[in-house]
Amino acid sequence: MGVEIERKFLVPEGEHVPDGREFEVRQGYLVLGPEGAEARVRRQGEECSLTVKHGTGLVRGEWEIPLSAEQFADLWPATEHARIDKSRRVVPHGPHEAVVDTYRGRLAGLRTVEVEFTDPDAAAAFTPPPWFGPEVTDRPDLKNRHLATADAPPLT
Amino acid sequence: MGVEIERKFLVPEGEHVPDGREFEVRQGYLVLGPEGAEARVRRQGEECSLTVKHGTGLVRGEWEIPLSAEQFADLWPATEHARIDKSRRVVPHGPHEAVVDTYRGRLAGLRTVEVEFTDPDAAAAFTPPPWFGPEVTDRPDLKNRHLATADAPPLT
Repeated sequence: MGVEIERKFLVPEGEHVPDGREFEVRQGYLVLGPEGAEARVRRQGEECSLTVKHGTGLVRGEWEIPLSAEQFADLWPATEHARIDKSRRVVPHGPHEAVVDTYRGRLAGLRTVEVEFTDPDAAAAFTPPPWFGPEVTDRPDLKNRHLATADAPPLT
Repeated sequence: MGVEIERKFLVPEGEHVPDGREFEVRQGYLVLGPEGAEARVRRQGEECSLTVKHGTGLVRGEWEIPLSAEQFADLWPATEHARIDKSRRVVPHGPHEAVVDTYRGRLAGLRTVEVEFTDPDAAAAFTPPPWFGPEVTDRPDLKNRHLATADAPPLT
């Protein structure tokens, strides 16, 4: 089991985001369970994966396996009720990576940035750079699992 | 998307079950969602698979992909909260197959049989052979998703 510790912020409209590698991300939820449990598939560039998460909050359990393109294609129809398309840019920031997601389609206008940490102390000590907006780590309406079934971007 | 139409019955204690091929089945739930949604992994003999189901009742949506042994092993720890071990025997019965499951571990004493059909008319027309016990198709406490988290066999 992996443990995921991350903080999430908005990126205000018009804010300049530093350069980084970019790729398209398409993800869909197979099952959205209670208490943060979920199973989702994702295609990130050419790489496909299946991720299972249990729990909520700053620390949650996570298991991930690579999928073949064929496995992904066979599971994708099961996500029709809950999908997200976004462009992702990964910006180096000191020892961390700032992962900027620009949402598309019905969620156009929403832009977030996430930073993942190896332990809770590092997460607490992190100082956001000036281009980060308000922190939204605990905003349930900005979790991907909620965005996946939202009709429009949540009010930010 | 596949559509699963099946009927399920108890097999009473002491009842003789005809011969058929046998293998061990181990399955665990990655996520148990609302309204019958679920994602589970299964090892059946040497074959591993991931199945996603949506919906409840006689007709439900189902998607399944094969998994490698390594993919199965990497996901199995995520099922610790909801697992089933059973011996399965597949008994030919006219144009159908009767799939008999003898549960093990904490569910020892429970034995069920399921028959899958290609359409609702065939399901309705099916006459159970004498060794089938009471029908339990609609018993929620005898669904595998519920058995997976039960401490003991439900009262039958």
